[in-house]
Amino acid sequence: MATLTSREDDYSKWYNELVIKADMAENSGVRGCMVIKPYGYAIWEKMQHHLDQMFKDTGHENAYFPLFIPKSYLSKESDHVEGFAKECAVVTHYRLKNAPDGHGVVVDPEAKLEEELIVRPTSETIIWNTYKNWIKSHRDLPILINQWANVVRWEMRTRLFLRTAEFLWQEGHTAHVSKEEAIEEAEKMLKVYTEFVENFMAIPVIQGVKSPAERFAGAEETYCIEAMMQDGKALQAGTSHFLGQNFAKAFDVKYQSKEGKQEYVWATSWGVSTRLIGALIMSHSDNNGLVLPPKIAPIQVVIVPIHKTEDQLNAIADLAYTLKSQLKQMNISLKFDDRTEYKPGWKFNEYELKGVPVRIAIGPKDLENRQVEIARRDTLEKHLHSVDGLAEYIQSLLQDIQQNIFNKAKERRDSLITEVNTYDEFKKVLDEKGGFVSAHWDGSLEVEEKIKAETKATIRCIPLDAKEENGVCIYSGKPSQRRVLFARAY
Amino acid sequence: MATLTSREDDYSKWYNELVIKADMAENSGVRGCMVIKPYGYAIWEKMQHHLDQMFKDTGHENAYFPLFIPKSYLSKESDHVEGFAKECAVVTHYRLKNAPDGHGVVVDPEAKLEEELIVRPTSETIIWNTYKNWIKSHRDLPILINQWANVVRWEMRTRLFLRTAEFLWQEGHTAHVSKEEAIEEAEKMLKVYTEFVENFMAIPVIQGVKSPAERFAGAEETYCIEAMMQDGKALQAGTSHFLGQNFAKAFDVKYQSKEGKQEYVWATSWGVSTRLIGALIMSHSDNNGLVLPPKIAPIQVVIVPIHKTEDQLNAIADLAYTLKSQLKQMNISLKFDDRTEYKPGWKFNEYELKGVPVRIAIGPKDLENRQVEIARRDTLEKHLHSVDGLAEYIQSLLQDIQQNIFNKAKERRDSLITEVNTYDEFKKVLDEKGGFVSAHWDGSLEVEEKIKAETKATIRCIPLDAKEENGVCIYSGKPSQRRVLFARAY
Repeated sequence: MATLTSREDDYSKWYNELVIKADMAENSGVRGCMVIKPYGYAIWEKMQHHLDQMFKDTGHENAYFPLFIPKSYLSKESDHVEGFAKECAVVTHYRLKNAPDGHGVVVDPEAKLEEELIVRPTSETIIWNTYKNWIKSHRDLPILINQWANVVRWEMRTRLFLRTAEFLWQEGHTAHVSKEEAIEEAEKMLKVYTEFVENFMAIPVIQGVKSPAERFAGAEETYCIEAMMQDGKALQAGTSHFLGQNFAKAFDVKYQSKEGKQEYVWATSWGVSTRLIGALIMSHSDNNGLVLPPKIAPIQVVIVPIHKTEDQLNAIADLAYTLKSQLKQMNISLKFDDRTEYKPGWKFNEYELKGVPVRIAIGPKDLENRQVEIARRDTLEKHLHSVDGLAEYIQSLLQDIQQNIFNKAKERRDSLITEVNTYDEFKKVLDEKGGFVSAHWDGSLEVEEKIKAETKATIRCIPLDAKEENGVCIYSGKPSQRRVLFARAY
Repeated sequence: MATLTSREDDYSKWYNELVIKADMAENSGVRGCMVIKPYGYAIWEKMQHHLDQMFKDTGHENAYFPLFIPKSYLSKESDHVEGFAKECAVVTHYRLKNAPDGHGVVVDPEAKLEEELIVRPTSETIIWNTYKNWIKSHRDLPILINQWANVVRWEMRTRLFLRTAEFLWQEGHTAHVSKEEAIEEAEKMLKVYTEFVENFMAIPVIQGVKSPAERFAGAEETYCIEAMMQDGKALQAGTSHFLGQNFAKAFDVKYQSKEGKQEYVWATSWGVSTRLIGALIMSHSDNNGLVLPPKIAPIQVVIVPIHKTEDQLNAIADLAYTLKSQLKQMNISLKFDDRTEYKPGWKFNEYELKGVPVRIAIGPKDLENRQVEIARRDTLEKHLHSVDGLAEYIQSLLQDIQQNIFNKAKERRDSLITEVNTYDEFKKVLDEKGGFVSAHWDGSLEVEEKIKAETKATIRCIPLDAKEENGVCIYSGKPSQRRVLFARAY
């Protein structure tokens, strides 16, 4: 197994190699579309499992809406179409036929669609066209629906997980009687995302709102959680949008209020995607490979036997299967890797590369001493532990590892927030240190665009907990009431 | 709530109305594409949950492959392209732009793809193009992968669940060192489907193989399970294909054997889809609405309170929540419907329509007598039961209902298998009774096509348990060694 490029040598190359070597995903024969391999998909399944439970616990149900969106629907909300029209996969025909020259197939020109269909880049339009028929009265509200789906945005520059033409995600779409209720929903789901990303994926995030320029196309307010990667670049980990009445008006969705009046419905939408797997990799992993938080790791514990004879292997297997069934009771997954075609040293590297949180090695000496060797993936430390009480010990060790991975990421993230008061400082921090730069901004689109053009930094968010503080915009010198967070971002 | 058309009056209309009225699904603004509503999707989630567990228990992992298939891939296996080219959604462009007249958006002619992309109708080609890079040695085999995905087949006549342009499914794609191992896999998955459809969905099926004409495009053998609907029409409930080396040859996928030779890989694929929900509805439901087997019902037990005062409602609620928590321990879902804007009678109809297996009504008199009224959805029988031991009773009642629904479907199915020995009898049974017609067939494509053209009946399968029996083909009079099952089908 060739070694991984180190983060210090080339962070971008390190990431690309790691995704491939750890068997997470690979590029497909289709431009910009990835194949998510079983190991990567198992992480997505764990993410889905926990998120889905959290959505249901907050009263949401799943449903499924069409993959295709008629072109005319997309145009109904003007900001929305502006935001998505330039990166759409368009279906124009519904049939192939044999090529006239007898080689292969060609598009049958007779089978042209009257109206082109867009492969959904997001589903607001098809869903609001549906909600129109579901909503008559205030009794039909709220509608609290989530969809697990694939979406397509024709990105020109793609990277595995971080930016792909097709990706998997969930999108919540809710409808409410009032502005207050819709805002409450959007904020509630931001909290759900924060809890999930911090507690399960061990990635600390900053909750905030986007500047108007960075809002979702069609939203009145975009709430977001922003994470910080090891290379000092930010990554948007999830968004929750308060859509006002924009889609209700575009699709003419009204309800009869308790007072008997016809009112437009209020909306939210919110989503996270397979992009989060990119954030997971870039938040915790090191030069030896992936580092996975136990709560999201497909394999939480692996046992590698070290043996010369068949008898030794059998004795180790006895121990392994006993432990496996004990851990199963605790909902902890254990893999016993008794493959004989690979040597222990090769397996050690393999599981390090794949980020398995706890690796246990057992040799004949260990059996005699009724002990095992335990290696933690997060710290790479090794120590011995008695066979007695091993399951309970592993359970608490996994909790410890989960917490430690989060703490480490949080310390790093905190050290990468820098307050600056001048534009010179701003540029210096961006270039020399990276991370979030906390600065005063006058709230104008003009300044935001100039700073972006000159430094490639964007406003990641206006933190929800930003304190009021009188200051002056680092660019224009105009007054500002609070600091916002800038960063270069994925 | 308007009443449902009865099955006797118009079976087809009954089905269409039922799907809508029971809130399972509806047609969308996109031709042939359905919206699966929360109640219908909850059934799909239960199906997914059980199937996924069965796939994992038999050693399979999930992965995800691209939605799009380059046109050239589709052409590589000649039977395969022949089978799917005529019903493909084709992506030709990747961008929209503002219409020159300022109204809406148009496809940007500058953004034409060099090679058109097909929205996957099934994924053999994109997957085998990927497996090519994964397989070098016999040590890389078997590959046992499943994918949960949406697929698109541009059907001209569509019906909710039964035949839609887009549908949800799972598709397994496996690669093996030998023909024997691949056949074993295809047969194993047919057994998994049989177990799932019979034990969870309570639909009895006949296991068999397809005639060559009815095989999957690109398969050497198609195993199938065939179900019988209440109107005497058959429905294919699942298929498992032995693909031979067809895709390995088309995509040049070879492995080095233990002996050091380069050999083509052997393949299978297998799938079931949201179509099964159509089979579920048509197998068990009646003129009052859905009848759902408990193992697949989103709500297994519902409690409807009958009260005049708030105090009465509170007392009923106490009982309901106690029972709910007891049942939760048994993994049984209970809904307590305490909505006051609907009357008990309305709720009774609603849950009957939605097929909730057990409905419990509790009134003030019942509370006094420490008893409840229990209604079974399958038999529509009502009886009283003491509050004591209620949870245990419900647990066994649900098992009883599950079994009863299956038995009823099986009796009906068995009564709809008719042996015939002449073509006249054959036509008479088809027209007057329907169901499976068991008849001798000479094995020729010619006879199969003629019978289909003359009667609309197809060979549903050659049952795996068909006994050897000398006979003569009902059409040609030529010798035949076993009976096959014909039927008109969905």
